[in-house]
Amino acid sequence: MAEYDVLTIGNAIVDIIARCDDAFLEAQEIQKGGMTLIDAGRAEHLYGAMGPAIETSGGSAGNTVAGLVSLGGTGAYIGKVSGDQLGAIFAHDIRSLGVKYDTAPLEGFPPTARSMILVTPDGERSMNTYLGACVELGPEDIDAALVAAAKVTYFEGYLWDPPRAKEAIVAAAKIAHEAGRQVAMTLSDSFCVHRYRAEFLDLMRSGTVDIVFANEAEALALYETEDVDAALAGLAADTKAFAIVTRSEKGCVVVEGEARIAVPALTVPHVVDTTGAGDLFASGFLRGYTLGLSHEKSARLGVAAAGHIITQIGPRPQTPLKDLAEVKSIFVG
Amino acid sequence: MAEYDVLTIGNAIVDIIARCDDAFLEAQEIQKGGMTLIDAGRAEHLYGAMGPAIETSGGSAGNTVAGLVSLGGTGAYIGKVSGDQLGAIFAHDIRSLGVKYDTAPLEGFPPTARSMILVTPDGERSMNTYLGACVELGPEDIDAALVAAAKVTYFEGYLWDPPRAKEAIVAAAKIAHEAGRQVAMTLSDSFCVHRYRAEFLDLMRSGTVDIVFANEAEALALYETEDVDAALAGLAADTKAFAIVTRSEKGCVVVEGEARIAVPALTVPHVVDTTGAGDLFASGFLRGYTLGLSHEKSARLGVAAAGHIITQIGPRPQTPLKDLAEVKSIFVG
Repeated sequence: MAEYDVLTIGNAIVDIIARCDDAFLEAQEIQKGGMTLIDAGRAEHLYGAMGPAIETSGGSAGNTVAGLVSLGGTGAYIGKVSGDQLGAIFAHDIRSLGVKYDTAPLEGFPPTARSMILVTPDGERSMNTYLGACVELGPEDIDAALVAAAKVTYFEGYLWDPPRAKEAIVAAAKIAHEAGRQVAMTLSDSFCVHRYRAEFLDLMRSGTVDIVFANEAEALALYETEDVDAALAGLAADTKAFAIVTRSEKGCVVVEGEARIAVPALTVPHVVDTTGAGDLFASGFLRGYTLGLSHEKSARLGVAAAGHIITQIGPRPQTPLKDLAEVKSIFVG
Repeated sequence: MAEYDVLTIGNAIVDIIARCDDAFLEAQEIQKGGMTLIDAGRAEHLYGAMGPAIETSGGSAGNTVAGLVSLGGTGAYIGKVSGDQLGAIFAHDIRSLGVKYDTAPLEGFPPTARSMILVTPDGERSMNTYLGACVELGPEDIDAALVAAAKVTYFEGYLWDPPRAKEAIVAAAKIAHEAGRQVAMTLSDSFCVHRYRAEFLDLMRSGTVDIVFANEAEALALYETEDVDAALAGLAADTKAFAIVTRSEKGCVVVEGEARIAVPALTVPHVVDTTGAGDLFASGFLRGYTLGLSHEKSARLGVAAAGHIITQIGPRPQTPLKDLAEVKSIFVG
């Protein structure tokens, strides 16, 4: 099998994106800026209440591999859709980028996962996710040869929500390490960290995971602190290789032992939709890392990709990221 | 039943919109700027060849009523989807705007129609439409009370493609006229005019249609001429009430007997995607017309709505058109 820069594993989701005002979030009791899991009944209610939408493939790890390939890398993806129209859309979108994607779709119920994403005038996104077919992802979906062929296997913390995906991840990490590869994860969401804090720490401390991506809120949640330096020290102690913490307009910092490598954020003229910002940061960083660039340059690629995705609607780049002037300057610089 | 400003009738379609370069259109032998009907096999081939896409509700007459409501009017829609996921998306999007939409979905095969729309770097869109469930629209789908309750019933010339929709239109026109209402149509596409030229002229000359919307290419095709003045004279003679001809960057002209009312186009800084430009022109004109505004002001509303829709991706307004400064100035001016 050909070598891939990155294999990502995640919940395979179609995003249903609509604009709304803050009053709508309040009326519907939606946690602003977060990802809330919803059941089929709530999904039907919310869809009936929200305005007209557009649909685009999404899912955190799916967005990350899409961004990585858009930056010129090679990628593969594992995630579970159903054999329905939304599943066909998800599969088309990721394959048409050149991402290897062969996870067997679920036949019959439940349908492909969808996240109703409400974007307020400030550009903030609030996600309401019905997991659908994602609940069926399990160890049987892990292609060992594919894991062994990827320089980095990256997964989302969100995978601790469906029941058996964590078994798939533990199996994949074992295969990756036996093949001399690395494993990376994103903590995904601060509420997700609250749900699985002990398990995430164990993944890090046991060496199941080598590299950790987190935003500031997730890092603080992981160490139950309000002191950023304490959280960074915790990550430095617990992460086998290194951690990268994104801090919105404050840029990001790579934490590797005693070292702290800070990279400033870009100035974005107008934030349209923050959906996918963290996912695309990981795309950029992993593109640089698997190319063998420095952590500083890799982080700058992450900042550039994240800074671009929030100027458009939806988490998948509408034009190739590798053509952006900001990205080109990092590759040649 | 409450009165509606406009009832529109058309092919109920979900758009699948992707960017491509001109070389892709050539390689796939796609008619640039046109609407080409495709069968299921061609649809599968083309979807496999094209890049990642976003999905949005579309369909010419559906876009027109969405725009009309976005401008503050009241609207209803008749069009056939299937009882599948894409059909649910179409129904949600139009109902969530406040459009009355009760056409019974088709159960089973064929699936909801989709149009694969390829947008080149110049912003031009080339449409490849699989009609799916639209082929089942017939007179049984016409709600007589709804037609009688609408000031204007508007339909798309594209409805001459499916087999029985024309019967539905003739039945609806009879109901509308018996209720003292008016009937409008768009000629839709110059290739569509070539297919149904004699029938479209008969709709006009028989008085089945009162108001005709056309772009310059469609008007020229209708009269098989390259002389715009001759085409306008033909429309003046054949149209029961009046005709409106859009001329892209040359604006538009309302043709009513001997009168010619010209309105210039807006200067659009950057054309993102022309999908829906003609549909939204009709939204604006019909909003003004049903409000009792002058033809000149109605045309200016059409120009404003069309000028806005080509600055975004897809044919459905992402923010309310009635809030646009250009639109407000016409209402108060």
